[in-house]
Amino acid sequence: MTNFSIDTHLSPIKKEKPNWGELEFGKVFTDHMFIMDYKEGKGWHDARIVPYQPITLDPAAMIFHYGQTVFEGLKAYLAKDGRILLFRPEKNMQRLNRSNDRLCIPPIDEDLALDALKQLIAVDKEWVPTVEGTSLYIRPFIIATEPYLGVSASASYRFMIILSPVGSYYKEGIHPVKILVENEYVRAVSGGTGEAKTAGNYAASLKAQETADQKEYSQVLWLDGVEKKYIEEVGSMNIFFKINDEIITPALNGSILPGVTRDSIIALLKYWNIPVSERRISIDEVMDAYRDGQLQEAFGTGTAAVISPIGELLWNNEKMIVNGGKTGELSKKLYDTLTGIQKGDLEDPFGWVTEIK
Amino acid sequence: MTNFSIDTHLSPIKKEKPNWGELEFGKVFTDHMFIMDYKEGKGWHDARIVPYQPITLDPAAMIFHYGQTVFEGLKAYLAKDGRILLFRPEKNMQRLNRSNDRLCIPPIDEDLALDALKQLIAVDKEWVPTVEGTSLYIRPFIIATEPYLGVSASASYRFMIILSPVGSYYKEGIHPVKILVENEYVRAVSGGTGEAKTAGNYAASLKAQETADQKEYSQVLWLDGVEKKYIEEVGSMNIFFKINDEIITPALNGSILPGVTRDSIIALLKYWNIPVSERRISIDEVMDAYRDGQLQEAFGTGTAAVISPIGELLWNNEKMIVNGGKTGELSKKLYDTLTGIQKGDLEDPFGWVTEIK
Ligand SMILES: Cc1ncc(COP(=O)(O)O)c(C=O)c1O
Ligand SMILES: Cc1ncc(COP(=O)(O)O)c(C=O)c1O
Repeated sequence: MTNFSIDTHLSPIKKEKPNWGELEFGKVFTDHMFIMDYKEGKGWHDARIVPYQPITLDPAAMIFHYGQTVFEGLKAYLAKDGRILLFRPEKNMQRLNRSNDRLCIPPIDEDLALDALKQLIAVDKEWVPTVEGTSLYIRPFIIATEPYLGVSASASYRFMIILSPVGSYYKEGIHPVKILVENEYVRAVSGGTGEAKTAGNYAASLKAQETADQKEYSQVLWLDGVEKKYIEEVGSMNIFFKINDEIITPALNGSILPGVTRDSIIALLKYWNIPVSERRISIDEVMDAYRDGQLQEAFGTGTAAVISPIGELLWNNEKMIVNGGKTGELSKKLYDTLTGIQKGDLEDPFGWVTEIK
Repeated sequence: MTNFSIDTHLSPIKKEKPNWGELEFGKVFTDHMFIMDYKEGKGWHDARIVPYQPITLDPAAMIFHYGQTVFEGLKAYLAKDGRILLFRPEKNMQRLNRSNDRLCIPPIDEDLALDALKQLIAVDKEWVPTVEGTSLYIRPFIIATEPYLGVSASASYRFMIILSPVGSYYKEGIHPVKILVENEYVRAVSGGTGEAKTAGNYAASLKAQETADQKEYSQVLWLDGVEKKYIEEVGSMNIFFKINDEIITPALNGSILPGVTRDSIIALLKYWNIPVSERRISIDEVMDAYRDGQLQEAFGTGTAAVISPIGELLWNNEKMIVNGGKTGELSKKLYDTLTGIQKGDLEDPFGWVTEIK
């Protein structure tokens, strides 16, 4: 890897590590963070690793008013042999730059960002948790910092990477989730920001998630914003169906987030000579398949859970119980294979895994 | 007005005031700001006026990641007799709470917020600029502050009010703007966050605005996100047309921001016995009217410019020159009346104006 000049200021204090067996998601942060600033005319500059600490911004900073911001999410895993592994991190940096383009944020140097990420993890390597199923969650993000209330692209930005050791998504092994099909609220629409990883999409989703929580469903399934008919994605996962032996996932249509896990699952299925249809699929088609006994499996894909089998879909008070509410065979096989590759337990025929030295 | 207990810490230094004749929008801030914090279980607390200063947040604060935030915008005017006047500020506080509801942010006490706003302006009263056409822009906003990377409503928030003296929108008197009808990007869709004043809507608009800037159009006109056919609103204004003597403005449909200026214009027109149609209006209808010589006037309404006559609309490379590119009679009359009421020059039959003591 190229070596960019990244100043490193080590923290004089090391925080106490939490109990790796009791980690939650995204509540504990490591000892250091990466920062790089942007100024119009000067470009990205001052790449540095510093102690994890609060940041100070003018109350008029544009991030607080107009939401010009993008982020990414990926994980580092500890292999059994002690190596620290990243899974396709270059895909996240590419997506960050695609998000930047949609949000009018100046592009970052993907190689530098990747290098920064690796150096940061190397500095905080003791924070990669060692318990089965745990990992180090990595959150790169960019915020607009210019103190100006005009609605326009900011003249200055801050790029940061923070790290958080996270627990296993499935405390008692992989198990199916219940998903609520959302009929009222809309997450994104073609021409909007749905395919970018940007704050506003998540802000828009909170109200629907609140209803799901009340009804004890774990996430919502979004339908398209135009006809409220075609399936888009789940809260923070893409979705796949197995219907009458066809594997189907909604095509990337401009309003769906192009997930790295989604892409990897498609590659894996093709590698196994299992055809995948990336196409439009309506909720009616799923319901018809269910009624005909042809809805064999459904699962979500995303960095957090890797594969989430879906045991139940609720749509307009009609329940679809998928595969008897149990984890399907394909879901299980995909989960085992992908997590196996990610943790270095299985052979990696795609060259997806990168070691941090 | 009720007197809430708001701690006031005056700034030891007073910043130099800018030249009132050379003010831009939203670049200079006053000596003080208002802050109030929220914590789950404790509610809103610690209302205080403090010196204008940077704020410090954890890099994991949810505002930086999931955009859970709302804001408002209104103005204080200096009357000829020295009184400082606010225009319908209670409408802004009501809208702030409607936005809060959509964004899952706990409601604020509207009376307290109004009182805080008045006390803050009273403290910084020397910052209300005195030159014709200038005013003090007021920006209340709320941000999610919990350091947590889970996608959910934050457990803590900060409500702030900052003040910025702003110049006249029209340096050489009211004059028409050129507007680009947007065909590719979408701002909001029914079921989304369009009727809330929240960051993500503005982030989504930057890309289209960039194109407008390049083509030398001042703002974009958004069409609906479903059929890309019906008129919604302009970048930061609602829109009105006068077609064949009918005054038309798009009905509030869930994706349009319900403007305070829009509401005031409708009230004013009704007071003058001029009927207003709040209804769906397609861009084709406007184009047909233009071709038939029936498109008499078009104007935007919003806090920044109050009334912006529209001199030209560009749609699919077809130009509609409205009223010969000049300010229409009705636009001018509405502008003079509304700004007259706001500045205390004209009688206020609606009780819209509130004095700050
Ligand atoms: C809205 C949304 N869809 C899908 C995904 C899955 O993407 P990935 O597989 O890259 O994690 C995520 C995030 O992780 C997401 O936030
Ligand atoms: C998107 C949008 N539409 C319309 C308006 C006009 O609203 P108001 O008249 O309350 O200023 C604004 C803001 O000021 C706005 O941001």
